[in-house]
Amino acid sequence: MRVNDRYLSFYYEPDTDMGEITIDREKTALLIIDMQQVFITRPKIENPTESDRYQAERWEPFFKKIDDTVLPCNKRILDAFRANHMNVCFAKIISRKKDGSDRSLDQKGTGFNALHVMEGDWGGDIVPELAPQEDELIFTKTTDSVVTGTNLRLLLNNMGIDTVVVTGVLTDQCVSSTVRTLADESFKVWLVEDACMAATEEIQRNELEILNNIYCHVINTEELLAAL
Amino acid sequence: MRVNDRYLSFYYEPDTDMGEITIDREKTALLIIDMQQVFITRPKIENPTESDRYQAERWEPFFKKIDDTVLPCNKRILDAFRANHMNVCFAKIISRKKDGSDRSLDQKGTGFNALHVMEGDWGGDIVPELAPQEDELIFTKTTDSVVTGTNLRLLLNNMGIDTVVVTGVLTDQCVSSTVRTLADESFKVWLVEDACMAATEEIQRNELEILNNIYCHVINTEELLAAL
Amino acid sequence: MRVNDRYLSFYYEPDTDMGEITIDREKTALLIIDMQQVFITRPKIENPTESDRYQAERWEPFFKKIDDTVLPCNKRILDAFRANHMNVCFAKIISRKKDGSDRSLDQKGTGFNALHVMEGDWGGDIVPELAPQEDELIFTKTTDSVVTGTNLRLLLNNMGIDTVVVTGVLTDQCVSSTVRTLADESFKVWLVEDACMAATEEIQRNELEILNNIYCHVINTEELLAAL
Amino acid sequence: MRVNDRYLSFYYEPDTDMGEITIDREKTALLIIDMQQVFITRPKIENPTESDRYQAERWEPFFKKIDDTVLPCNKRILDAFRANHMNVCFAKIISRKKDGSDRSLDQKGTGFNALHVMEGDWGGDIVPELAPQEDELIFTKTTDSVVTGTNLRLLLNNMGIDTVVVTGVLTDQCVSSTVRTLADESFKVWLVEDACMAATEEIQRNELEILNNIYCHVINTEELLAAL
Repeated sequence: MRVNDRYLSFYYEPDTDMGEITIDREKTALLIIDMQQVFITRPKIENPTESDRYQAERWEPFFKKIDDTVLPCNKRILDAFRANHMNVCFAKIISRKKDGSDRSLDQKGTGFNALHVMEGDWGGDIVPELAPQEDELIFTKTTDSVVTGTNLRLLLNNMGIDTVVVTGVLTDQCVSSTVRTLADESFKVWLVEDACMAATEEIQRNELEILNNIYCHVINTEELLAAL
Repeated sequence: MRVNDRYLSFYYEPDTDMGEITIDREKTALLIIDMQQVFITRPKIENPTESDRYQAERWEPFFKKIDDTVLPCNKRILDAFRANHMNVCFAKIISRKKDGSDRSLDQKGTGFNALHVMEGDWGGDIVPELAPQEDELIFTKTTDSVVTGTNLRLLLNNMGIDTVVVTGVLTDQCVSSTVRTLADESFKVWLVEDACMAATEEIQRNELEILNNIYCHVINTEELLAAL
Repeated sequence: MRVNDRYLSFYYEPDTDMGEITIDREKTALLIIDMQQVFITRPKIENPTESDRYQAERWEPFFKKIDDTVLPCNKRILDAFRANHMNVCFAKIISRKKDGSDRSLDQKGTGFNALHVMEGDWGGDIVPELAPQEDELIFTKTTDSVVTGTNLRLLLNNMGIDTVVVTGVLTDQCVSSTVRTLADESFKVWLVEDACMAATEEIQRNELEILNNIYCHVINTEELLAAL
Repeated sequence: MRVNDRYLSFYYEPDTDMGEITIDREKTALLIIDMQQVFITRPKIENPTESDRYQAERWEPFFKKIDDTVLPCNKRILDAFRANHMNVCFAKIISRKKDGSDRSLDQKGTGFNALHVMEGDWGGDIVPELAPQEDELIFTKTTDSVVTGTNLRLLLNNMGIDTVVVTGVLTDQCVSSTVRTLADESFKVWLVEDACMAATEEIQRNELEILNNIYCHVINTEELLAAL
């Protein structure tokens, strides 16, 4: 199957052929990024304030998209990798010091990105639908890029992996930072559009256009599974 | 001066205060990214084909913006850093092997990102208006992120630098990848909106919104110079 | 207390003053390397072969030194760091894939360095006397240097740590590789001679001379505790 | 040719076979470390003090060994790599800031390791016998390990290099640190005993025993050239 022509940015409009979608099972790993309760589950707040209700409403389309599309797609892809005995990796954001001092500066800020979830906290867990199994790798990070914040690159090199299928959240944040650093480290990257998500459809579309054909090829779950 | 409220994305709309614009001259370096002939100068083609003329027309607004705004802003900022005896760094994309084999995968592709410029080629030079001077650091890379592809992080750590002012091209590519990895490496980053540029104003705006408040604060040249 | 003049190599014989032993508790972490059952506990073999008995005899002085000196010194240092509420880190060698494919090449070899211990194996555990406690960091590696194989450097940078006290085994292998890379990453390193050990006293002495004054200062447990 | 049984340490005495010396020309690079004037040329001092004469006398056996053996062996190996159109890399220690602030802590110390040589200084030059030629890579570092202080690892990965032949000075310092980090990064390393040197024959022998069979195999120039 040829690589599709969706998400063509200004840079790549004149190009007509992006090659074939091919996957070498021995050399390809799945990387599921930050599909943790804190990011993809509606927060349960006992006595919500006005501000809590406002936030819940703003984020509702995101959670619905996760439930209806992103989580099911991740599950299908994960099942396929497991059925084919292919390598599976997970990343999650976890502070390792109780005072959060080990976090990088972009996670010590104020506002949305102020993150401080510990191992064992409900929010830090990967959602049960995607729970890691034996012999699957979990990379714990206090950065946005899994490459910059863990030893993923070295371990994948050692394992003979040269291609990574990326899914997860948020497309414009940890996913984008990871895709970019993987590409700079010379991994071939396939980013699955219906298995990743940004806060809004607009940001999602903008980021996919920015990443596509430069740092990865954007494909969908159907295209990926057909090539496995 | 308070950090402005421009380029607020969905994530940060509810936040009202992003702090103060402050610069510690001893701990802050300027990083000018990829302001090389090949990227910011109109290509001179002797007998242009139809396709060459089409490309020239598409890119003309970019080159005009570089000439009118981005290059002058870089020059003003560079002059200010030099006048204040502050650290100045440049990054540039240069293949170091004649066959281009040292390039990372995202620069070995086809289409727009297929880059192969050697030291000494006209295209590889930083434009004369911004020519590096004695005791300014030049980082040569075959990646998009200056952090992933060079020893910039270690040298800045050694020099006691914890804050980086970033300018250059292209905002959504090498600039974004660098800003993200700098933030993951715990540098505080100020990205100067009128001293960086993407191919189009739309991509520029989208990327600035994506990066702002998470990986950096987006400010303009006036705001920066007022804080120096 | 002045730095002692033990373990002076050819390079440093003419130098007469190596400065003071000082420890800033806020900026100093303890790093205990590979004090795992597989390395520092006599192997229990049901029906030992001739070769097993030969190896047991050769290694007996090492195990005795561990029991009599190295383990007690580590315990004293660990207790002191905990009493002073200072940061404590552990490193251990653990394969994360059942087939050992994630190991770096120097741990996939034949002979002594062919290592393949999984999380949960008895051999992989840190010995109970030094069992990590809550809020102490454990770095799992498939390399010899903790710096090259984990995100230790980034986390220590984030935590404001600039000095590392190093103990553990084996002095000439994982300890030396870690000390060297810490020094190259601009950490000040104190290596504790009676809390680390090589296979033999001769290798121990040779490696301490090689490392001392260049990559670290070699001190003993008494000197360290006096400076805490 | 089988790997020889020289420099067998305590760890490897029971092992009897270390495999074959084989070189794949496409995947093997030569790395010549720090063969710079400042390290391997007798200092010319106009009016030497007592201390200068004392140092000159202590170091004379080192310089003689360089002249008689190490430099000629490096030249022969370099010629062979060039004749076979194989990849050649050089490392050198060069400060990039006039105040030396970019140096890592192990090069900012006092005594022997206090290094501060700039590009253009006579001492910083690689000796003329080994002057780099077109399309050979030069890695400039302010660390001891070439891996920790430069982008060597990434570039060699990109170039398809998985094996490195290492030569240069000083065996127990920059050479050892580089060999160890290369091995941790899963490169196969051949260290050439008569093309590298420590300050004394004793340190040389000790370090070769420590490194051999774990981080590299120690071979000599004849064995290497026979395998090319």
